[in-house]
Amino acid sequence: MTIKKLLTSLNDIKHGQDFEIQGWVQNNRGNEKIKFLALTDGSTVDTLQLVIKSENIKRFNLDKINLGSSIKVKGKLLLTPTAPQPIELAVDDLILINNTDEDFPIQKKETTLDFLREIPHLRHRTNLFRAIMIIRNALLFEIHSYFQKHDFLNIAAPIITSNDGEGAGETLIVNSSEGDFFKQKSFLGVTGQLHAEAYAAGFKKVYTFAPTFRAENSHTTKHLAEFWMIEPEVAFYELNDIIPFADNLLKTVISNVIKKYPSEMKLLDSLKDNNLITTLKKYISTPLKIMEYKEAIKILEKHKKEFEEQNIFFGMDLGSEHEKFIAEKVVNGPVAMINYPKDIKAFYMYQNDDKKTVAAFDLLVPGIGEIIGGSQRESRYELLVQRLKELKIKQEPLQWYLDLRKYGYAPSSGFGIGFERLVMYVTGVANIRDVIPFPRTPGNIKM
Amino acid sequence: MTIKKLLTSLNDIKHGQDFEIQGWVQNNRGNEKIKFLALTDGSTVDTLQLVIKSENIKRFNLDKINLGSSIKVKGKLLLTPTAPQPIELAVDDLILINNTDEDFPIQKKETTLDFLREIPHLRHRTNLFRAIMIIRNALLFEIHSYFQKHDFLNIAAPIITSNDGEGAGETLIVNSSEGDFFKQKSFLGVTGQLHAEAYAAGFKKVYTFAPTFRAENSHTTKHLAEFWMIEPEVAFYELNDIIPFADNLLKTVISNVIKKYPSEMKLLDSLKDNNLITTLKKYISTPLKIMEYKEAIKILEKHKKEFEEQNIFFGMDLGSEHEKFIAEKVVNGPVAMINYPKDIKAFYMYQNDDKKTVAAFDLLVPGIGEIIGGSQRESRYELLVQRLKELKIKQEPLQWYLDLRKYGYAPSSGFGIGFERLVMYVTGVANIRDVIPFPRTPGNIKM
Repeated sequence: MTIKKLLTSLNDIKHGQDFEIQGWVQNNRGNEKIKFLALTDGSTVDTLQLVIKSENIKRFNLDKINLGSSIKVKGKLLLTPTAPQPIELAVDDLILINNTDEDFPIQKKETTLDFLREIPHLRHRTNLFRAIMIIRNALLFEIHSYFQKHDFLNIAAPIITSNDGEGAGETLIVNSSEGDFFKQKSFLGVTGQLHAEAYAAGFKKVYTFAPTFRAENSHTTKHLAEFWMIEPEVAFYELNDIIPFADNLLKTVISNVIKKYPSEMKLLDSLKDNNLITTLKKYISTPLKIMEYKEAIKILEKHKKEFEEQNIFFGMDLGSEHEKFIAEKVVNGPVAMINYPKDIKAFYMYQNDDKKTVAAFDLLVPGIGEIIGGSQRESRYELLVQRLKELKIKQEPLQWYLDLRKYGYAPSSGFGIGFERLVMYVTGVANIRDVIPFPRTPGNIKM
Repeated sequence: MTIKKLLTSLNDIKHGQDFEIQGWVQNNRGNEKIKFLALTDGSTVDTLQLVIKSENIKRFNLDKINLGSSIKVKGKLLLTPTAPQPIELAVDDLILINNTDEDFPIQKKETTLDFLREIPHLRHRTNLFRAIMIIRNALLFEIHSYFQKHDFLNIAAPIITSNDGEGAGETLIVNSSEGDFFKQKSFLGVTGQLHAEAYAAGFKKVYTFAPTFRAENSHTTKHLAEFWMIEPEVAFYELNDIIPFADNLLKTVISNVIKKYPSEMKLLDSLKDNNLITTLKKYISTPLKIMEYKEAIKILEKHKKEFEEQNIFFGMDLGSEHEKFIAEKVVNGPVAMINYPKDIKAFYMYQNDDKKTVAAFDLLVPGIGEIIGGSQRESRYELLVQRLKELKIKQEPLQWYLDLRKYGYAPSSGFGIGFERLVMYVTGVANIRDVIPFPRTPGNIKM
């Protein structure tokens, strides 16, 4: 029985019922007559209040038990409906399993996020990181469940690959210490999309949920060298089919997490001036708008004085400030920007009849900007070959990918969600290093 | 509506009801008066029979439609309870989306597994690989669901790490093309266990489900350079707690998959002389036995003539033949072998009072041998330091791991399941290269 289950099934508890639990001491207050320990077991940010009477305080050596220590307690559950906490445990027996050393760096006093990043193996023992990691796990399982319910097949796209990705940034290189393990140059994958397309042609609906890698030398709050991506790919779907699917996926997943994790969301909300849940709920209840990229350019041009980057033109890559402006000021809600200039998008995107744009979409959300990027894929073999030539990308390593178009291909569309970006959005956390247990960035690979 | 859902909800179908579906032609038989196409949509190995009457055969140009082509059909669903298939679609309209070229390598005629390994992007379009990948996906989701139901938190252990694993084999090395991206030597993780332990100390029950890597130069049917591992870790669990958990996890997951995927299991069963399902069901219904390693050695010694490796002694690493003998001939069911000599096990395992053995267990199953390996972890700081010294493993890079013992540590136990080994066991597939979409082995990194 976890603390989470205990607190959500109070109706099943008998006042005075025997109970036994193990966990960690999160707080220790009171006086020599009565002590209150807050016990956490990691199942929720909520704690179980342990009440220890005077005759036991000395027996359990309570004054020597430091915060973070692991203990085992037995006692009787008391329902306390009028108290701040609805239930407490009157302790009859307490065993100290492992006391924390005095130098345990997680203390009651406030610590900085910077300091906690130096101890990624311990920072989850703060309430903030406990909440973040619980929400991260919740999002992961909601996403898997959503896909499975909608008949998607999870596929393991390879991590190590001979394909150099989509040219979306420097790739990391893999080898054995003797070198030449794979007898050819091998990379850590930047996307599972090309492999997912191969599987969509046969399974119709597939998705990957796996680590991907970038060797970009970025030191921003939004970039990691190692991060998890979710990449669904659907055969027989065109751009107009995949956009509402992406919209529904995100809204359903976020909505379920808010409902199922009230304590964690409330805690995170309190750190964001109580507007995190409001913001998320507004996003969920606001229907998605569609906007052409060229339409956005016209609007941005009119407001260019409001931006740092004021050179607004058809063909530009929109900056985060432009994306946020569209989502927050123009649409005031989520918007799928579609039909981007082909020169700023990847080679595999479906070329529109205007010869200038591709059937791409970015899903922009107030407060965070781009959260999903996707497209319909080019299904026409000859156009794909031509595009590779224009971009001076070697055809031979991608021949298998081109060949998919000859073997019962169908329109295929998909997108990528950077999982950590999603966790940031739902938790309101500003730095991507704080939503993954052991963040990897240039020059930083602790543990 | 998928074919799987259609076939499992026949009661909801009205005879003559309009229906529309997209998919791929898997079979094309009949004569000029009537044609039967088998349509697959990847949701199941079962196909939907399309019936096309003479007047439409020419109109749809049916003789030109090759196997594997993508089509869209409309028509009326006809319930055919007395026919071999329970339902068929009388086609009124058929649109050919993309015909396969004549050189499409997946044809009705038998192909070898070796040949199919050369085309990992297309082999899932055979019925065998369709079944394997459907079962793989099913196992993945059942495993996630089992852990979530049992209050486990999924954690992302890092893929790129500065820890050189458990010395379980050569590691792969990661770098950027300019070198020195992480400012220190960095590896692809061989296990997420050490990081999982850090999180178990705080969340109590955690698990990883992620790719892991080995640079071993193995060319066997059981080794991959890149494979997925499931690694649960539970604080407050000792060896005797984790073993029944592992047993229940495996049996529940396999049992659910057999129940939910009868068509795929039947197909795979037919390829294994119809004993796959029998074997799995026998495993599920046979209670786990526990056997001491030293007991096993005594038994194996008596039967040494039956083995290739006849040098049986306390301290030896058991071979697959020995493990299978114990599971199949001695126990005739699943067995957890426990308390292995410490010298053949990893440094972090709990040292038993006899000073010779550690609290490790391997779960051995008839037909496959070891399917799970795990242990209780050493919780005593000083013993861990001493063990590192004995094994000449540098302490400094593992100091963070040792420090966990000072900060409210508790007994902690866990294990690893090689996901592909599990898929092999449940599908009856003999070569590990055939249970992962894009297998990576020394010298082989297609696509």
